[in-house]
Amino acid sequence: MRFAHETLPQRVVFAPNEAAGAIGDEVTRLGAERVMVITAPSSASLADALTDALRVAHVHDEVVAHVPVEVAERAREAAAKPRADALVSVGGGSATGLAKAVAVTAGLPVIAVPTTYAGSEATDVWGLTRGTTKTTGVDAKALPRAIVYDASLLRTLPVERSVASGLTALAHCVDAMWGPHADPIDRVLTGEAMRGLQQGLPAVKADPGGVKGHEQSLYGAYLAAVAFASAGSGLHHKICHVLGGMFHLPHAQTHAVVLPHVLALNTAHAPEAERRIAAAFASPNATEGLAALRARLDAPTALRDYGTPEDGITKAVDAIFAAAPSNNPAPLTPAKLTALLRAAWEGAVPRPSLPKKANPL
Amino acid sequence: MRFAHETLPQRVVFAPNEAAGAIGDEVTRLGAERVMVITAPSSASLADALTDALRVAHVHDEVVAHVPVEVAERAREAAAKPRADALVSVGGGSATGLAKAVAVTAGLPVIAVPTTYAGSEATDVWGLTRGTTKTTGVDAKALPRAIVYDASLLRTLPVERSVASGLTALAHCVDAMWGPHADPIDRVLTGEAMRGLQQGLPAVKADPGGVKGHEQSLYGAYLAAVAFASAGSGLHHKICHVLGGMFHLPHAQTHAVVLPHVLALNTAHAPEAERRIAAAFASPNATEGLAALRARLDAPTALRDYGTPEDGITKAVDAIFAAAPSNNPAPLTPAKLTALLRAAWEGAVPRPSLPKKANPL
Repeated sequence: MRFAHETLPQRVVFAPNEAAGAIGDEVTRLGAERVMVITAPSSASLADALTDALRVAHVHDEVVAHVPVEVAERAREAAAKPRADALVSVGGGSATGLAKAVAVTAGLPVIAVPTTYAGSEATDVWGLTRGTTKTTGVDAKALPRAIVYDASLLRTLPVERSVASGLTALAHCVDAMWGPHADPIDRVLTGEAMRGLQQGLPAVKADPGGVKGHEQSLYGAYLAAVAFASAGSGLHHKICHVLGGMFHLPHAQTHAVVLPHVLALNTAHAPEAERRIAAAFASPNATEGLAALRARLDAPTALRDYGTPEDGITKAVDAIFAAAPSNNPAPLTPAKLTALLRAAWEGAVPRPSLPKKANPL
Repeated sequence: MRFAHETLPQRVVFAPNEAAGAIGDEVTRLGAERVMVITAPSSASLADALTDALRVAHVHDEVVAHVPVEVAERAREAAAKPRADALVSVGGGSATGLAKAVAVTAGLPVIAVPTTYAGSEATDVWGLTRGTTKTTGVDAKALPRAIVYDASLLRTLPVERSVASGLTALAHCVDAMWGPHADPIDRVLTGEAMRGLQQGLPAVKADPGGVKGHEQSLYGAYLAAVAFASAGSGLHHKICHVLGGMFHLPHAQTHAVVLPHVLALNTAHAPEAERRIAAAFASPNATEGLAALRARLDAPTALRDYGTPEDGITKAVDAIFAAAPSNNPAPLTPAKLTALLRAAWEGAVPRPSLPKKANPL
């Protein structure tokens, strides 16, 4: 047992149906007086209702995916003018990301009010895109000081987006089991995160307008992000990053298709992860547990359905092999990665590989 | 699911047999140049060896249990003189407590190197004793910035002290399940903490000089303290505090005797805690799981063996009833507390009470 674990300071509030009051409490707790609200136009009326009782210095509604640098610059200028002393972001990963971009330069504390399962609110990672190049970095100022999760805000999220976003949270879980800095604390949080998503996502699918499923899913997505931020990107995220960049694939679907294949490859070499994932899924083993959950969610199964050309497998393998973490539980070879990508491309049923020798992870 | 959880910023390093190097890394990480070492005379040669490669401004070895205020004052003066820019504490709860007392006024970061399972290193609570009155408070500056756990440092701890200290850690676990601010995140950390203690403490008992048992126990004790600091003192700690203050009982033994009775009282009213504790102990239920672990550790069973007079039960009940958290899972009455104390005094076998109506904790 040799590891270092860094715990990030954050306050998280779960307040179903009570976001407005909870946001107000957090503003008071920060000693802030005038807030700048960051939200996409589609969430503007929601944000307006949630911040009705606050002194709002400015509402900034230019929110663009991946935070283009010029969008960030305009938000930073806007933050400087009205002398806001806190930022309140209402929305998905893009709104949170813009708030982080402002926080990093302006030094203002962020209160994040998520409306998806993106999880960005629980990390100190910021991202900015210049042209087609995305730069990411880590900065303590990027970590929201408080998160307010109100499950009722997700009741209007289209069920397909809930499921896609939830599967991305599940991908955080899987890589948090064996990312480059994964430790036992990450793994226990991940197990709990998976339990939340396992209970929550099928409930969301069955009753998208109910609060219960979203509540469990938000709880799971939060812990998944906390653990993933600590563990770092593992094989799964490296594969999706390479594929997404090469073939401009849809983010959530790529994650959803690739995930079970990475799990099947690794669990036989990672007994602790296997045990924890199986327990979280209440399943005899991790691979079957994920398959059962995916079936309940009608998760996508084949990369070929989303724009990956067949010869893309060969193109991607070398880049993935180069990017893969050296501590991946299953030893990797280009041939193994080719087989994995082929199976994901076809939509084959993932089967756990049997290790020659167990890795005592 | 309505709760707020505050996560405290801390770096924790598990480095068996490698404390000296790990301490050096943490000093560098803090950008510190000259450290003040706080350690009791009994640990002075250990502390010396561990900090051999550092620039040590001063070694302060006046360490007294419960941090008398005059002891703290002398340590604070000592910290001011040599212009140390970090504190390294090596020892049990008293050494950590003194370092915290200095940190609160001097603003110096603490690197804690624990040699028991006290857990104080994972909390932002400080304590000072003036005469016979102990004052405690919460201060972000009291939280050690880093902890270095080296299981090999505990190999020379007498087995009785290991067990006593481990049972105190187990008491943190139990109250973290239902303390006044307990939330699901505290409970998942607590479940993991119990698993660590359940595996580690019997291994320590069987082989006090081995590293494996201490490693698991330290991991459990750390997570127990994290969860307990978040959840706050529950019924168990209130009982022990009142009894300890009234009858000057030995700390660890009081905890060890009272714990199973509080568990038996509460679990039937706290299904989530019951489920998690039973799972951690790999036992059909929480009460039996704790009983089995206690039997393996030869844990103390009766308050009357440790100086509690029989009429002390009546004396203590009112004070305990007044101090008990209003959210205790089992509804409390003076009669119920009397029965609990009587059973603990006699050393009766605790039996779970059956609830009239389950509380959906």
